[in-house]
Amino acid sequence: MAYFDAASAAPLHPVARQALLAALDDGWADPARLYREGRKARMLLDAAREAAAEAVGCRADELVFTPSGTRAVHTGVAGALAGRRRVGRHLIVSAVEHSSVLHSAEVFEAEGGSVTQVPVHRTGAVSPSGYAAALRTDTALAVLQSANHEVGTAQPVAEVAEVCRAAGVPLLVDAAQSLGWGPVEGGWSLLAASAHKWGGPSGVGLLVVRKRVRFAAQGPADERESGRAPGFENIPAVVAAVASLRAVRAEAAQESVRLRELTERIRARVPRLVPEVEVVGDPEHRLPGIVTFSCLYVDGETLLHELDREGFAVSSGSSCTSSTLTPSHVLKAMGVLSEGNVRVSLPPGTAEEDVERFLAVLPGVVAGVRDKLGAPAAETSAAPEPAVLVVDALGKRCPIPVIELAKAFPGVPVGGTVRVLSDDEAARLDIPAWCEMRGQEYVGEEPADGGTAYLVRRLD
Amino acid sequence: MAYFDAASAAPLHPVARQALLAALDDGWADPARLYREGRKARMLLDAAREAAAEAVGCRADELVFTPSGTRAVHTGVAGALAGRRRVGRHLIVSAVEHSSVLHSAEVFEAEGGSVTQVPVHRTGAVSPSGYAAALRTDTALAVLQSANHEVGTAQPVAEVAEVCRAAGVPLLVDAAQSLGWGPVEGGWSLLAASAHKWGGPSGVGLLVVRKRVRFAAQGPADERESGRAPGFENIPAVVAAVASLRAVRAEAAQESVRLRELTERIRARVPRLVPEVEVVGDPEHRLPGIVTFSCLYVDGETLLHELDREGFAVSSGSSCTSSTLTPSHVLKAMGVLSEGNVRVSLPPGTAEEDVERFLAVLPGVVAGVRDKLGAPAAETSAAPEPAVLVVDALGKRCPIPVIELAKAFPGVPVGGTVRVLSDDEAARLDIPAWCEMRGQEYVGEEPADGGTAYLVRRLD
Repeated sequence: MAYFDAASAAPLHPVARQALLAALDDGWADPARLYREGRKARMLLDAAREAAAEAVGCRADELVFTPSGTRAVHTGVAGALAGRRRVGRHLIVSAVEHSSVLHSAEVFEAEGGSVTQVPVHRTGAVSPSGYAAALRTDTALAVLQSANHEVGTAQPVAEVAEVCRAAGVPLLVDAAQSLGWGPVEGGWSLLAASAHKWGGPSGVGLLVVRKRVRFAAQGPADERESGRAPGFENIPAVVAAVASLRAVRAEAAQESVRLRELTERIRARVPRLVPEVEVVGDPEHRLPGIVTFSCLYVDGETLLHELDREGFAVSSGSSCTSSTLTPSHVLKAMGVLSEGNVRVSLPPGTAEEDVERFLAVLPGVVAGVRDKLGAPAAETSAAPEPAVLVVDALGKRCPIPVIELAKAFPGVPVGGTVRVLSDDEAARLDIPAWCEMRGQEYVGEEPADGGTAYLVRRLD
Repeated sequence: MAYFDAASAAPLHPVARQALLAALDDGWADPARLYREGRKARMLLDAAREAAAEAVGCRADELVFTPSGTRAVHTGVAGALAGRRRVGRHLIVSAVEHSSVLHSAEVFEAEGGSVTQVPVHRTGAVSPSGYAAALRTDTALAVLQSANHEVGTAQPVAEVAEVCRAAGVPLLVDAAQSLGWGPVEGGWSLLAASAHKWGGPSGVGLLVVRKRVRFAAQGPADERESGRAPGFENIPAVVAAVASLRAVRAEAAQESVRLRELTERIRARVPRLVPEVEVVGDPEHRLPGIVTFSCLYVDGETLLHELDREGFAVSSGSSCTSSTLTPSHVLKAMGVLSEGNVRVSLPPGTAEEDVERFLAVLPGVVAGVRDKLGAPAAETSAAPEPAVLVVDALGKRCPIPVIELAKAFPGVPVGGTVRVLSDDEAARLDIPAWCEMRGQEYVGEEPADGGTAYLVRRLD
C-alpha cells in the first residue's frame, strides 16, 4: 500500500515509537506529585517543552501541550478573543482555514461576535492587503494558516503578521501542515499545531501564546499546563511527539527537496496523462509534499475506491466524499473545480517508484470511472445532436450535472445558451469551473423549479 | 519503589501496553477516510467502543471517547446543563467531588447559574436525602461521584439516581475511581471516567450520555465522536484503554478481596502503631484499594518526602502539599483532620510485603517528622507550665499552630480556655479536629489582629 495522505495523518515516526515506549515506563505518573515517579514524569515533560519551544522558536513558558491540534486552535482562538474582549468582538479568518478555525468562528458569531472571511486568489493564497482591508478598530484577533491543508499553498504569514502588528492585532497561525518542515517566520502572536501531522502520535497538539498577548482561557481550567489545557498530561505521547518533531526537522532540508521533486512530477505529468484535469494550488509557494488536482466528469468517492483498490491511499475534497454533501470550502473559495478531486500528500520517505506507479495507473483509473458514468470522451468530436437548450439534472449528484452538460454541449450552436437545472450544491462550483476550463462563458445562475438553473453560453 | 498512588494514576497495564503497540501499527490513520488504513482504524475504534459500552453497561452509540476524564466531566456537565437550559439553571454537586466537577460548577456560577453543594457525613458519604433536599424545580443537573478519590468512600449512587429520576433530573456520575472495579449500578443518566485510573494510557476518558438525556455539546464541534469530542481520534490509546479495562475487570473480583484485606490491615494497624492518628473515610462502604489517615503534628510535605526516601509513593490532601495552600476540600467537607494527611491507594497486584514494610517504617518516619517540628511527645505528662492563655502562631504554617496549641495545653487549667492566634487557613480545620480527637471543647473562632483567634476549652 502506498500511503499518500500524510496531510491527514502521518504514520508514526520510528523515533516517536521508540520515545513513546521509553516514556510509557518513565512518564506515566502524575507530574504534580512529589515522589520519584512524579518527579521523573515532570522532568520528561519539562524537557519535552523545552525541545518543542526550541523547534517552534518561542519560550518554554509560552508553550502548552493540548490533546490535539483541533483543541489547540479552539483554545487559542477562544482565549485570545476573550483576552481582548474590551477591544472589540471582531475576528478575521481566511476563507480557506481548517474546519477547526471555521467552527471556532461559527461559535463566536453565534455568541454575537462578527467574523470577516478574507478571500483567496485562485492559487489558494490570501493577500496581505486582504487582511489590511479586513482590519477594524474592534478587531480582537486575526487567524491565518501557514499553509493550506488541501492544496498545499503557502500563505504570506510574515507579511500578514506585519500588517496585524502595525494595527496592534494579534495573529494566530495554524501551523498544523508546516511545523514539521520548519519554524513559522514573522511576528505572529499565537501558534497552534498537531503532532500526528509530523509523525508524532495522536493525542498531542501544541498551543503557543506569546508573553505580550492578552489571553483568557475559557471554560473550566485546572492548574495543569498553565491553566490552558485541563486534564492529566499525556506525557508519553508528548515525549514521542517532540522526539518526532526533532527527527523530521533533522531530515527536513533534504527531504523537502526530494518530495518537492516528486510532487512536481505529478503536477507536470498528470495534465498530460489525464485529459480534462485541473491541477490546483500555487505551483511555487507550496508545501513540499502536497499536490492536488481535479478531474472533470469523475465522482470523487468512486475514484478514491478505485485508487485504494490499486493500492493508493489518497484524500479528496470532492463533495461526493463528504458526509455533508457540500464541496470542500477550500476549493470553493479558490473558485476551482471540485469534482473528481484528489489530494496527494506524500509522507517523508515516499519511494520514487510508488509515485511512478501512481502516475502509471491514474489514467486508466480515471478513464474507467468516466466510462462507468457515461462521461463524454475527451477531445472527440461527437456528431451534433439536435439542439438541447435545457439539461435537466435535477435529483442527480455530482459529477452527473457536469457530465450531462458536456454531453449536451456539442448540440448547442455557437452563441447559443444552455440551461442546466440542478439541485446539487456542487454544481454551483463545478459548472463555472467547467466553463473556465473549456473556454466557454458562464452567464450566471437563477432560481428554477426544484433547484437552480445555471446558464452557459457557447463561445466556440 | 512501592507505588501506592494508584488513585492518581495507575501504571500502564501489560495488556494495555501490548494493545497500544499493536494499534500504533493499525490505528494511526484517519478513521473518516475511505482507504484501507482508514477502514482499519475505523474498525478498531468501533470495536473499542462496543467493548467499552459493554463494560459500562450502555449502548455503543451512547459512549464517546474524550482526551481525559477531566474533559469528559467538563463536556458532560456543560452539555447536560445546556441541554436543559429551558428547565432552569440550577446544578447540584456534592461537596467532595473531584476538582473537574467543582471547576465546571464555578464556570457555571460565573455565567449566572446557581449551584448547591450537598454536604457529606464525617465518613465522606452523601445522603440521598441531601440530594432530595437540594432538588428544585429549576434543577438542570445533579452530579455525584461513584466513590471518593481522596478517602475511598463509596457513594449511594443508585439511591441518589432514584431520587433524581423521581424528580426528572438527570444524574451525572463521575466514575473515575470505580469503573475498573465494576459497572456503576442504578439509573444514572450520564457517566464520566478516566482510563489512566484503571491502567490504561493517559489521553483517554469516556463520556456516556443516555439516549433519553437532552444534551447540547458546547464550544466548537466537528463530526468526530458524535460531535461531542472534537479533534482527531486517539485510536491507539483508546484501544489500549479498553483492553486494560477488560483486563482489570477480569481480575476485579479476586483482586478486590485481596486489596481490601491489605487496606484493612493499614486501617486497623496504623492507629495502634502511630499515636495521634485519625483514619478517615467509611470503613465498610469503600473502594478496595484506598485508605487515608491524618497524623497530628505532622507536615504533609515533609512526610511525603520521608516516605519517598523510604521507597513509598503516596499522596496527601494536606494543605502543606498543595500549591494553593488550602487544605483538601474533601477533608474539609468531612470535618476531619487534614494535617499530616496520607492517602495510600494500592494498584492491583500490590505485594503484601510492600504493605508490611510500609507499616514497619511508618511509625519511625512520623516520629522523625514530629521530632524535627518539636511536636509534643504523645501520652507524656509534661510538667505543667505557667498558665498560657494566648498561643501566638501568627505567620506560622500548618502544622505549627496545632503543635503550639498542644504544647501549651498542659498549662491550661481544666475549665480554662486557650486562644490560638493563626493566619493559616488550615488551622480552621485542624484545631476543631484536634479538639475532637483529644476530647476537648472547641468553642469557636473570632477575628483577631492579623488573623483569627480559635478558642479551645480544656475539659479534662
